[in-house]
Amino acid sequence: MESDFVAWLLGRIPPDDRLEVPPGDDAAVLRPPAGRRTVVTVDMLMAGVDFVLGPECPPRAVGHKALGVSLSDLAAMAARPEAAVVAVALPRQGGDAIGRGVQEGLAALAAEHGVALAGGDTNAWDGPLVVSVTAIGSVEPGRAWRRDGARPGDLLVVTGPCGGSLLGRHLAVAPLCREASAIAARHRVHAAIDVSDGLSLDIARMMTASGTAAVLDLERVPIHPDAEAMSRRPGDERSPLEHALGDGEDFELVLALPPEEARSLVAHAADGAPGRRPTIIGEVVAGEGLFARDSAGGRRPLPPRGFLHAFDS
Amino acid sequence: MESDFVAWLLGRIPPDDRLEVPPGDDAAVLRPPAGRRTVVTVDMLMAGVDFVLGPECPPRAVGHKALGVSLSDLAAMAARPEAAVVAVALPRQGGDAIGRGVQEGLAALAAEHGVALAGGDTNAWDGPLVVSVTAIGSVEPGRAWRRDGARPGDLLVVTGPCGGSLLGRHLAVAPLCREASAIAARHRVHAAIDVSDGLSLDIARMMTASGTAAVLDLERVPIHPDAEAMSRRPGDERSPLEHALGDGEDFELVLALPPEEARSLVAHAADGAPGRRPTIIGEVVAGEGLFARDSAGGRRPLPPRGFLHAFDS
Repeated sequence: MESDFVAWLLGRIPPDDRLEVPPGDDAAVLRPPAGRRTVVTVDMLMAGVDFVLGPECPPRAVGHKALGVSLSDLAAMAARPEAAVVAVALPRQGGDAIGRGVQEGLAALAAEHGVALAGGDTNAWDGPLVVSVTAIGSVEPGRAWRRDGARPGDLLVVTGPCGGSLLGRHLAVAPLCREASAIAARHRVHAAIDVSDGLSLDIARMMTASGTAAVLDLERVPIHPDAEAMSRRPGDERSPLEHALGDGEDFELVLALPPEEARSLVAHAADGAPGRRPTIIGEVVAGEGLFARDSAGGRRPLPPRGFLHAFDS
Repeated sequence: MESDFVAWLLGRIPPDDRLEVPPGDDAAVLRPPAGRRTVVTVDMLMAGVDFVLGPECPPRAVGHKALGVSLSDLAAMAARPEAAVVAVALPRQGGDAIGRGVQEGLAALAAEHGVALAGGDTNAWDGPLVVSVTAIGSVEPGRAWRRDGARPGDLLVVTGPCGGSLLGRHLAVAPLCREASAIAARHRVHAAIDVSDGLSLDIARMMTASGTAAVLDLERVPIHPDAEAMSRRPGDERSPLEHALGDGEDFELVLALPPEEARSLVAHAADGAPGRRPTIIGEVVAGEGLFARDSAGGRRPLPPRGFLHAFDS
């Protein structure tokens, strides 16, 4: 029954000094950090679209992913995570166990990132599992990374390799909140976006927002081993590069920075973990659209690829 | 297609000085009002549970209700509405038109209550319409109404008549944010809750949270004409009072106040609109549970009635 489940839920939420009124009331009351802006993002995950419940994706993984994708949005703003509220629609059949698993996944990632779970809304229905997480962060005034600030001459940096996330990384989201804060403290970033729908599609979105174009050096795009593994699977007709450019759910960050900042960022990180090094993959130019630099130094249009929610109209 | 729809959405959101970064980025950046707490609540509405799309409930009504129930939660905390973010899962078939309708309903109510629509997440799937609204408000430190502050000796006040909301009021939610602020400015309220799941059930929740019991004077419970209309319908076996006590989705407020404050509140509002007057309906006593005062002045247990999300375990 819901009341037992909600009581269990509330008992599992650790106390947090940032909450003036703890979970269980009509709303949560947060003490916002003085002198900072409030950063808010919401993501909704639906069974059959964003995950398929089963042995490879237990409810706990759904809870992890649901919070992870929202925290990745905070990372893309260089915001520090503060709190989250969660709404779930649980299938009536087995909803209790599913709800507990989702909560465990949420709570573990929340603890890892210092997120206060502030409350939520728990529902049952005859439909599939739906989880919606609203993450709340903070940032100094005027210091949030935006996607509309790229300028011609900026270099584009991606924080890690892309492609093939369906092999597991799309569930095991590792939001780059700490990494983003560290970069923001040292480098002047003009624009940022997280790679959720596809590296090329998300770069195209940044360019559209900024009123600029991008030229990518395709041979520099860091390709994840999962992209190569997917490309080798029977029936897969895409190259590892195509997977890297279009798969999405990598939750890496793409940054646009002045050239000296980009080079300093890459140099600074050269002692980082292999495979997780930031890489310069292209540059921002005047105009509109997305281009690939060919071997002769010319440009050809690069159609953005990625995940779009399509309607039948 | 989603990108067109999202572009339409973003174009429909009026600019707001409270937003440092407007909708369309990875997250919204809000300027929190200085010296106030942040109040956060989330509600998820699912087709077939919270509404049935059709001639009596177009998508616009769903958008209205989705924001309305979250604003009602803010009213129950005496918080001033500031902003909202919205996540939707739109049915792939016809999702574009549904999404536009939902947005129109949200935007109209947001404008009425001074809510900045700060962003959202738009998805398509083969499932039913799901809308989740996170509302963000503000309140002075220590001044949020809680549900756990009722004390023996307090009187219980309901702000308006209950029952029969299924005849239409469950969709046409009129959140009492301004009324709550006005009451908070003049009266010392010990505890508050909004009537979402059922008057008796929500009072029972306040009592459980407060560690107290309540004795209701059933003849004083204000009964909405809709409760009488429902009771007259063929096959309906509940009295108007039973509808008032258990139907829910009235979105009135129940307040627990010291007797002199309760009497002053009722007297102050006596010049208000007929049918929307606050009414004293019972008192808080030591102990636990919910009781009805019988005609001889004795007490009998009153089982709380209302809407619970039940699981099959």
